[in-house]
Amino acid sequence: MTASTEIDIKSLVRTIPDYPKPGIMFRDVTTLFGHPSGFRASVEQLVAPFQDQRVESVAGIEARGFILGGAAADRMHCGFVPIRKKGKLPAKAIGQEYELEYGVDVIEIHEDALSPGEPVLLVDDLIATGGTAVAAVELLRQLKAEVVGAAFVIDLPDLGGSARLTELGVPCHTLMAFEGD
Amino acid sequence: MTASTEIDIKSLVRTIPDYPKPGIMFRDVTTLFGHPSGFRASVEQLVAPFQDQRVESVAGIEARGFILGGAAADRMHCGFVPIRKKGKLPAKAIGQEYELEYGVDVIEIHEDALSPGEPVLLVDDLIATGGTAVAAVELLRQLKAEVVGAAFVIDLPDLGGSARLTELGVPCHTLMAFEGD
Repeated sequence: MTASTEIDIKSLVRTIPDYPKPGIMFRDVTTLFGHPSGFRASVEQLVAPFQDQRVESVAGIEARGFILGGAAADRMHCGFVPIRKKGKLPAKAIGQEYELEYGVDVIEIHEDALSPGEPVLLVDDLIATGGTAVAAVELLRQLKAEVVGAAFVIDLPDLGGSARLTELGVPCHTLMAFEGD
Repeated sequence: MTASTEIDIKSLVRTIPDYPKPGIMFRDVTTLFGHPSGFRASVEQLVAPFQDQRVESVAGIEARGFILGGAAADRMHCGFVPIRKKGKLPAKAIGQEYELEYGVDVIEIHEDALSPGEPVLLVDDLIATGGTAVAAVELLRQLKAEVVGAAFVIDLPDLGGSARLTELGVPCHTLMAFEGD
């Protein structure tokens, strides 16, 4: 066991009460990512279950998923594929709606970002209701990629997102959970 | 010399004419980042000049700078610090205006993201006029961090950004240039 796996990464997450609105306990990963050993351990633990699998690309969800996804792609010798908010990708893209508390939003992926059958790992910092992650899986599957799994630093299991991914047949790997959120 | 340094990374950048508006040749790094060896070589070459220096944090500029910055921080055993668009950071932040073609925009950094004297490397995908990068250097210096350098995959030297950084005393490392942009 190396030093970076012994570190208590959960204690490095900062909780900001009543952000972005009253009653929400916001889990802020910037303090974890800003800690050299904490960031390193997070990336190491995030990719660990997938190191022995065939993965060719890591897809990261804008914006915090880019931080982890870039590091994960580099570690796993993969390409990095961005899943972005609507209108941010310069070439031809396909989009997928997902529900917000009020209304809907859209995420997009370049239509030539992945080849049919290409094994891809989905990465983001946190999974809550799973709205964005499920939309991301749908985008990856529209490109006929094989979603080998999804990895998140933080799970808010009470909001059901990780269970939704499992129901979709996507193995969901998370490093810590905050209950009661 | 490893395989990843032999690859012609410039040929993997996709040029999209007339995006986002007529007359602009948009340099799209998603094709480079999506290529496993191309992404790996980019990260490797990006951090190479700074590997023997004392660097404790990598600051990445939202959003594409997060992809490279996360990988660079992981490689260099550094913490990662996000520089984000206004209103995206959950804790107390300081902001810096920069000029757009029409009007101004603001980037922000958490005020506790770096300690006085902390050596930090700034990372983004591309430097053009340098408006965002100069604002980022000003934010880092407001926190009294020591900006040891700035690294970009693409330089558009005709737009003068890399020269502006050099004038500010920030060594500017770029992997390729597109002239006439």
